[in-house]
Amino acid sequence: MISVGIVGGTGYTGVELLRLLVSHPDVDLKMVTSRSEAGKSVAEMFPNLRGFTDVCFSEPDAKTLGACDVVFFATPNGTAMKLVPELLEQGTRVIDLAADFRLKDSAEWEKWYGMPHACENILAEAVYGLPEINREAVRSARVVANPGCYPTAVGLGFLPLIENGLVDDQHLIADAKSGVSGAGRGASVATLLCEASESFKPYAVDGHRHLPEIRQTLGVAAGHAVGLTFVPHLVPMIRGIEASLYAAVLNKTGVDLQALYENRYRDEPFVDVLPKGTMPETRSVRGANLCRISVFQPQAGDTVVVSSVIDNLVKGAAGQAIQNMNIMFNLEETAGLNRPALLP
Amino acid sequence: MISVGIVGGTGYTGVELLRLLVSHPDVDLKMVTSRSEAGKSVAEMFPNLRGFTDVCFSEPDAKTLGACDVVFFATPNGTAMKLVPELLEQGTRVIDLAADFRLKDSAEWEKWYGMPHACENILAEAVYGLPEINREAVRSARVVANPGCYPTAVGLGFLPLIENGLVDDQHLIADAKSGVSGAGRGASVATLLCEASESFKPYAVDGHRHLPEIRQTLGVAAGHAVGLTFVPHLVPMIRGIEASLYAAVLNKTGVDLQALYENRYRDEPFVDVLPKGTMPETRSVRGANLCRISVFQPQAGDTVVVSSVIDNLVKGAAGQAIQNMNIMFNLEETAGLNRPALLP
Amino acid sequence: MISVGIVGGTGYTGVELLRLLVSHPDVDLKMVTSRSEAGKSVAEMFPNLRGFTDVCFSEPDAKTLGACDVVFFATPNGTAMKLVPELLEQGTRVIDLAADFRLKDSAEWEKWYGMPHACENILAEAVYGLPEINREAVRSARVVANPGCYPTAVGLGFLPLIENGLVDDQHLIADAKSGVSGAGRGASVATLLCEASESFKPYAVDGHRHLPEIRQTLGVAAGHAVGLTFVPHLVPMIRGIEASLYAAVLNKTGVDLQALYENRYRDEPFVDVLPKGTMPETRSVRGANLCRISVFQPQAGDTVVVSSVIDNLVKGAAGQAIQNMNIMFNLEETAGLNRPALLP
Amino acid sequence: MISVGIVGGTGYTGVELLRLLVSHPDVDLKMVTSRSEAGKSVAEMFPNLRGFTDVCFSEPDAKTLGACDVVFFATPNGTAMKLVPELLEQGTRVIDLAADFRLKDSAEWEKWYGMPHACENILAEAVYGLPEINREAVRSARVVANPGCYPTAVGLGFLPLIENGLVDDQHLIADAKSGVSGAGRGASVATLLCEASESFKPYAVDGHRHLPEIRQTLGVAAGHAVGLTFVPHLVPMIRGIEASLYAAVLNKTGVDLQALYENRYRDEPFVDVLPKGTMPETRSVRGANLCRISVFQPQAGDTVVVSSVIDNLVKGAAGQAIQNMNIMFNLEETAGLNRPALLP
Repeated sequence: MISVGIVGGTGYTGVELLRLLVSHPDVDLKMVTSRSEAGKSVAEMFPNLRGFTDVCFSEPDAKTLGACDVVFFATPNGTAMKLVPELLEQGTRVIDLAADFRLKDSAEWEKWYGMPHACENILAEAVYGLPEINREAVRSARVVANPGCYPTAVGLGFLPLIENGLVDDQHLIADAKSGVSGAGRGASVATLLCEASESFKPYAVDGHRHLPEIRQTLGVAAGHAVGLTFVPHLVPMIRGIEASLYAAVLNKTGVDLQALYENRYRDEPFVDVLPKGTMPETRSVRGANLCRISVFQPQAGDTVVVSSVIDNLVKGAAGQAIQNMNIMFNLEETAGLNRPALLP
Repeated sequence: MISVGIVGGTGYTGVELLRLLVSHPDVDLKMVTSRSEAGKSVAEMFPNLRGFTDVCFSEPDAKTLGACDVVFFATPNGTAMKLVPELLEQGTRVIDLAADFRLKDSAEWEKWYGMPHACENILAEAVYGLPEINREAVRSARVVANPGCYPTAVGLGFLPLIENGLVDDQHLIADAKSGVSGAGRGASVATLLCEASESFKPYAVDGHRHLPEIRQTLGVAAGHAVGLTFVPHLVPMIRGIEASLYAAVLNKTGVDLQALYENRYRDEPFVDVLPKGTMPETRSVRGANLCRISVFQPQAGDTVVVSSVIDNLVKGAAGQAIQNMNIMFNLEETAGLNRPALLP
Repeated sequence: MISVGIVGGTGYTGVELLRLLVSHPDVDLKMVTSRSEAGKSVAEMFPNLRGFTDVCFSEPDAKTLGACDVVFFATPNGTAMKLVPELLEQGTRVIDLAADFRLKDSAEWEKWYGMPHACENILAEAVYGLPEINREAVRSARVVANPGCYPTAVGLGFLPLIENGLVDDQHLIADAKSGVSGAGRGASVATLLCEASESFKPYAVDGHRHLPEIRQTLGVAAGHAVGLTFVPHLVPMIRGIEASLYAAVLNKTGVDLQALYENRYRDEPFVDVLPKGTMPETRSVRGANLCRISVFQPQAGDTVVVSSVIDNLVKGAAGQAIQNMNIMFNLEETAGLNRPALLP
Repeated sequence: MISVGIVGGTGYTGVELLRLLVSHPDVDLKMVTSRSEAGKSVAEMFPNLRGFTDVCFSEPDAKTLGACDVVFFATPNGTAMKLVPELLEQGTRVIDLAADFRLKDSAEWEKWYGMPHACENILAEAVYGLPEINREAVRSARVVANPGCYPTAVGLGFLPLIENGLVDDQHLIADAKSGVSGAGRGASVATLLCEASESFKPYAVDGHRHLPEIRQTLGVAAGHAVGLTFVPHLVPMIRGIEASLYAAVLNKTGVDLQALYENRYRDEPFVDVLPKGTMPETRSVRGANLCRISVFQPQAGDTVVVSSVIDNLVKGAAGQAIQNMNIMFNLEETAGLNRPALLP
């Protein structure tokens, strides 16, 4: 059994981690910390967990956390980086669901996140936890930077094209749409039901924090910097991301895009390339650790269109974090994650 | 392993049965029949099942179904009663998720369902599959009539009061609200997103088919006929039923209603009486085989208010059917059903 | 032209007042105050108003407000009562959309609203602005207490029965359901889309502030105190209230309930009794100043069921306030309010 | 007063036409036809119209329709073209909300709509009713082809760029999203609440019927054929379209895109260019005849991003049709259309 701690379990990635971990066959959930809710039963805050765990929120404390095999951070950006060095010293491995360790370039990080980085020295060793590109590195990582939700959907959607140099990677377009849970569980006017339901809008057109993260992933795959326009939108639903990706095919002849995608992801347990002509929908992955992808070349033109869907809280956050944990501890990669989506 | 067949797997109770059965540790899913979709892959129709089953819809056929240990009927009313006798002859046990075997009085059945009953002789032996009242009978039943969704929520909510004769059972009121999946997956204008979302309405005020079923359950518990006003409403959401129940307390003194409910359901794995003062919400049981109940006596008056929530597709249909199967085959009653609800 | 001021225009009743007033043929909108947003353009906060008004939020100031013919308060409870005396001195008439002047009994008010009342002396003259019972008093009122949303739906639904002594008025039951906009535009976790959508729940079962208000209205109609159990519920939609009302008919013979309701409301421009057998739905009044009502006696039993729907922001708040203004200033009662609901 | 007839008033564009026309100061609604609903009161089918019209559905009949000044067709594609010649003979003018007269090239029309065209000779004179490009032609038109919903949002969004030759018009990308009402009021599984809510998906990636229509509009503006990738998506809401448009700027220096858009639409009553840095949301135009547009050049790169929103049933259908009628009959262009959107 792996002993697990969670720092900051009061948000949506926190409760999703808990939902998945309480059914995980190899996990012993030791503690869930929350400064604001210390003493309160986790199941009182999240009634779906009544009967599944008796854990109460506790004060975060590096020493007791350090007794865990692995600690998940489901905290706001900037929290994990302050505690991680102390945990590593105690031999505890870390999976950060926030952004602290996602960007290799600390100057870039500071520009987008608006604060100095507290442990730049760890950035180099931290592994970007997208198993589909970094599985072997994850296996032995002490610190895993769990990818952002948009970067997971956009990255997995573009990778086969970029890795093979098939498209103009200086003018990539990612039109992404997310359910409201991506904005978190904090009280805010913009995400009230009365503001966000029955409406659709773009946001952060001028620049979203996930832009440099996607660029980094695709840049590594391309072997050089890529050009990307990334426009996120807010969808009136709770869970789900769909990313429609557009790129100009460099050479129209010869490449079977369907086969390319199927081959790239044939052995991936959590990426499902749909049959030719089929389009994905976010509900087909609701609650499941899965990315479903379709690839099109409309009217046989020179623009390739990829549609990629995930549940932002699962493959885009908590599920992928558990997938990383499974890899780190040599468990079945699918342990605790092998359930169908909830449909309808 | 129990070999299982499903007749009529193209509706919402069908796909929910499939979602739960493909993860059930003791089930071998042999066949899913559908006249209209025969030959089509189940996973093609329900993309959440891709990767979880290779079964294709087949033509319903009593002989091959008869090779299963148990057959679930997820069919329109009036279908099961035509096939069940033949299955029973082959030793196959049956769980009917439709209404064919729910009412003991065939005249009453014919009045509400508008057709003659095809096998009245089986009505007497059929067991009404609400485990909380009929667990022992279910264990040996050949035919289980799986309860309706409203009758499950209303029945479990009223039972402790009725069984103990604590309220005026001639003037019970059940104000029930259901998500739209209760209306099924058939194409109809009334359940289009544009008709049913962003709106709320009562329906069938003059008489809903679940009225006689609830009356029968409560009548058995009371030992005499009860009087009930039952008003269902349509809620703009996919899953969930909440029933607010009202009754006049016969004697205000002395009974601790909270303790009454907690004691009644203490040993029930799928009924959760909430702590005093807490109110249930349907999302706390989304996707889970669970009924959550609260009991109140507002302003210490003589009206008792009970709120009972279920997922209409799980404890109100497919989940309860699997719970019955578990009981019938001496499996752990919670096998395949012990997962937290999906929240948010 | 009536010169109009609004105090506190940043919430949902505020923006709804603005939406209706900018199209009102007899209104000159002079000012909208908001301490927190002073200086900001109203249309910047509420983009639906771009092109319809140039007004900016201003600091509330009794003197400039006093230059208006009428001032609407769309403020939290407890605000209007502090400014009203000063406005009345200047000859300005007041319509309070909050609760400050709704209860005649100041002790009761203080119990439910948790603060001392600042101008008890005005309570006696304030007119409870439900035109269907107080039209003549509204005409000459200096202060109109605009009814709460639930009290409007429940009150209009019960009145014909209570006024005619046809039911047991000691055991009335009102099972009411509201869209989320009833909870206001303040940032809060409970009304986030991810908390309130795809779910349904009761709340405030132990006692909601609208309970004494409904009791007061029905008590006046009955000529004595009534007994009422009132259970509100939260519906996953933006606008709309449906109240299902239950009462025991005292004498089953003789009364034609349909005719009773039709006669009671025949001359009311904003109450629509539906044809016998038809059920209302909240979307049929979305955005409209209208209460639609149906009355039933299921299975010809002794329980009468009434279903009453309104848009909580219109007939339950801003629309009714304008209806009151129209009456107070001898305008056409329907001026600015005579548009069909938005459907779908 | 203009005497008006509607053919086919049982769908969503039909009820929206009715909602707007019953409040139009210059319109006398003569008849609404529907073969299937003949004899039924319009207000019985659409309860929001109760009290606003007494019209009943009647059998379509060219002679009585010919007595109207103008006839709107809110019918499936292929219906108007069969009746229009007979109406024109009687001097009746026609506004077709379906696609029969939108494409100038009948071969193209037949390819996309799968049937022969019944009156090709009228195609040449029919005016494509996007007032922002064809106002003068609409004024004297006998037949107006009311634009499709996507073509309105995408066309208005791209026009300023295309008319001025500022972008690579061979690789335009339109990523469009629509509420479910765009799919109409016909019973179908795909648009059930339980299928379409809480989910997001692309559809018709291989080619949507609005593609040739958009190409035609942009081609005329460019003076040559354009290249366009158009991907529509389904949003879990009732009303609203958002189109995110992407194009490569040919010359990055010098053009002030914000000023370009503001100047282009300065005199348009129903196009609102938002202030720089502001993003549109569909709810800001819900129920209103308005297109709101923002233009961006993220990270000062060479990709321009335009976001354009409309209510698909209003500026995308019924409202634009009335705008065209107003122009055709020399009424105020804004008559009957000048109301704020319903928000929240």
